[in-house]
Amino acid sequence: MDFPFSRIAGGVGAARGFLTSAVSCGIKDPASDRLDLALIHSDRPCSSAGTFTTNRVKAAPVRVSQAHLRKGDLRAIIANSGNANACTGVQGIGDANAMCDAVAKPLGLRRSEIGVCSTGVIGLPMPMVRLLPHTPELLAGLGPDQGAEVAKAIITSDTHPKEIAIAFDLGGHTVRIGGCVKGAGMISPSMATMLCFITTDANLPSEALRKTVLECVEDSFNRITIDGDMSTNDTVLVLANGASGMPAIRRHGPRCKQFRAAIHWVMLELAKAVVRDGERVTKFVTVNVSGARTYLDAKKVAEAVCKSALVKASWNGGDPNWGRIIHAVGYSRARIREELVDIHIGGKAACLGGLQAATPMAELRDIVAEREFTIGINLNQGSADYTMYTSDLSPEYIDFNRSEYAYWKQARKDGLV
Amino acid sequence: MDFPFSRIAGGVGAARGFLTSAVSCGIKDPASDRLDLALIHSDRPCSSAGTFTTNRVKAAPVRVSQAHLRKGDLRAIIANSGNANACTGVQGIGDANAMCDAVAKPLGLRRSEIGVCSTGVIGLPMPMVRLLPHTPELLAGLGPDQGAEVAKAIITSDTHPKEIAIAFDLGGHTVRIGGCVKGAGMISPSMATMLCFITTDANLPSEALRKTVLECVEDSFNRITIDGDMSTNDTVLVLANGASGMPAIRRHGPRCKQFRAAIHWVMLELAKAVVRDGERVTKFVTVNVSGARTYLDAKKVAEAVCKSALVKASWNGGDPNWGRIIHAVGYSRARIREELVDIHIGGKAACLGGLQAATPMAELRDIVAEREFTIGINLNQGSADYTMYTSDLSPEYIDFNRSEYAYWKQARKDGLV
Repeated sequence: MDFPFSRIAGGVGAARGFLTSAVSCGIKDPASDRLDLALIHSDRPCSSAGTFTTNRVKAAPVRVSQAHLRKGDLRAIIANSGNANACTGVQGIGDANAMCDAVAKPLGLRRSEIGVCSTGVIGLPMPMVRLLPHTPELLAGLGPDQGAEVAKAIITSDTHPKEIAIAFDLGGHTVRIGGCVKGAGMISPSMATMLCFITTDANLPSEALRKTVLECVEDSFNRITIDGDMSTNDTVLVLANGASGMPAIRRHGPRCKQFRAAIHWVMLELAKAVVRDGERVTKFVTVNVSGARTYLDAKKVAEAVCKSALVKASWNGGDPNWGRIIHAVGYSRARIREELVDIHIGGKAACLGGLQAATPMAELRDIVAEREFTIGINLNQGSADYTMYTSDLSPEYIDFNRSEYAYWKQARKDGLV
Repeated sequence: MDFPFSRIAGGVGAARGFLTSAVSCGIKDPASDRLDLALIHSDRPCSSAGTFTTNRVKAAPVRVSQAHLRKGDLRAIIANSGNANACTGVQGIGDANAMCDAVAKPLGLRRSEIGVCSTGVIGLPMPMVRLLPHTPELLAGLGPDQGAEVAKAIITSDTHPKEIAIAFDLGGHTVRIGGCVKGAGMISPSMATMLCFITTDANLPSEALRKTVLECVEDSFNRITIDGDMSTNDTVLVLANGASGMPAIRRHGPRCKQFRAAIHWVMLELAKAVVRDGERVTKFVTVNVSGARTYLDAKKVAEAVCKSALVKASWNGGDPNWGRIIHAVGYSRARIREELVDIHIGGKAACLGGLQAATPMAELRDIVAEREFTIGINLNQGSADYTMYTSDLSPEYIDFNRSEYAYWKQARKDGLV
């Protein structure tokens, strides 16, 4: 950030003119009152933009939201957790449409002005019979200062809700950006398994917002990985309603640059929060690749290292194992020369020119024992670089993901399968 | 196999004219007498062929063996376990050469007639001071019927040695093929982390052997994955000495086809044995992709499914989670259409046309509870197929791979770092 801003409370409800609400429908857990259905609504027309999973298997709400987003005029978002509405065919599309319809008319909007998102188990029909009776309560609950409820309602295996909001001056007007995110499992570049909603009272035309969001997602959410899996439901939606009263931001003006820096900062903070709260994660690792011949080479190296089960297992064990890092560098398919590769752990040389450096192992071990550290990989072949954010891989992660069978049993009880 | 053969004893020492030996040097564990240095020697000139890791970071013995193999006239192989001699620079090359020299002159061979292989920890210099004093004992021990010792000497984290040998009739002559393999961790296509030695008394010119070996490795070892990591040391070496007395096999004759079928069967059995003995593996899973538009599409789908941490975790938990399988199919970058994808588990439909099939979940669960099962994925878009062999991913795998720090401490005690 090269211009001042301040963190404020309110998360996705912090920007002016946005109302939010969340209720419990028992989708996530019929036996508890955990929030699992959320609504975000702008009291005036919006510009909107978004990015979606590149998985060829796309959940119904992704397909519906992609279609609705085409005009860039979304004004509300309805989202549930507990069921992904993925691999649910024609019925899934109908259910996603029904979710939109349940709030569109009461809000005085067209169906195509609603974004819809779901996250949870794949392959089971949406329990609409649980969801629909709660939409009147959801609508009635709309109000300001409730962003935190939305952050709570969208989480699944996350250990805590994740939200952020900032305010800053843009050409004499105070502008707010707020957002929340859920992540935890199935996290990988090209859209982590993740829902992220961002609202702002800045005034941007749709096209300027769309380009800004695409660029900023590429440099934030697409740079994180936890387990290398990519979800069917990943969605980032951004609504800008201009309620700050500022004049419209022009695409190539200086205020667009300032706005871009602010929203990128918000996205990067949320993306990092997803990694830090990854399933059974104990380490937050920044992998910084430099000296590559091309951007793509740098990216390939970063991805190979960040996705290697053996590298991640060694971090979990607090082992400064540069041998496993360089072996991942080697199979990344990037153009590298072993005898030029330097690897630094927490700024200290672990490997220089492909060989063990002089730094005492105990010093490196102390760094990897920390909860957060940086791995620097210099290929010494060019000037391109790429940074990714990742985690360790723990025995507890595997254990946690051994079975979703309980969901099927519940679905059977509900008569859905 | 469309022609008869019989399994025989003797492993890599079963073919006529091959002598083997193995000793303990204390590289794997200074405190025990576990075998960790092996020698294979043909009493007459050989044709030879091999394939090596495609990792750009290559261990010194890989570089040396690649150079030696160029003429296709290797007659002996020396191999150690406990240290990979990888990322060891010029000194590593010198050490690999010294390993060759230690046996070349006593055997009356040139250095370039020796293949050299190492497996174990990366980044530490070879403890030559432990290894070299034992080479006279290694040479003195050469004899027939000792193939099992070689299989023992090359294993690292494997739970048991893996070997096989067969005899069959080829144009009126009895021909033998024997081999051994080590694997366990860092196993991925394009050469698993793995050493495999195969000997045969068939009579093949180098060029015919080379092409046969390349094709057969592609359809065996390159079709397995355990953890998706690719080693710096992977090597398959095949020696053929003609000691069966048969006339030379012509590249395009029917006997070459028969020989190819036999050596492919040997390689596939050894490759499957590597998966079955993968680190902390509890399941052996055959993933059979069919109906793809191209071979490459089928391969991409198989690899994505076989490498997904979430899919593998669900197998570990005995969960017939087809949702995770189809999500991996979706991000494989193959051309797939969700609504055409069928997934069968153990022959029973789990997903038809991208939707949950009618098979009761309990039936699918019983199949995934078995130690071995098959996943069939039909993309219904073409006629190309691809089969891979893989394992589950267990919490114990991660736990097992958390730290190799003990190796560093030992290396320090040895004055190597």
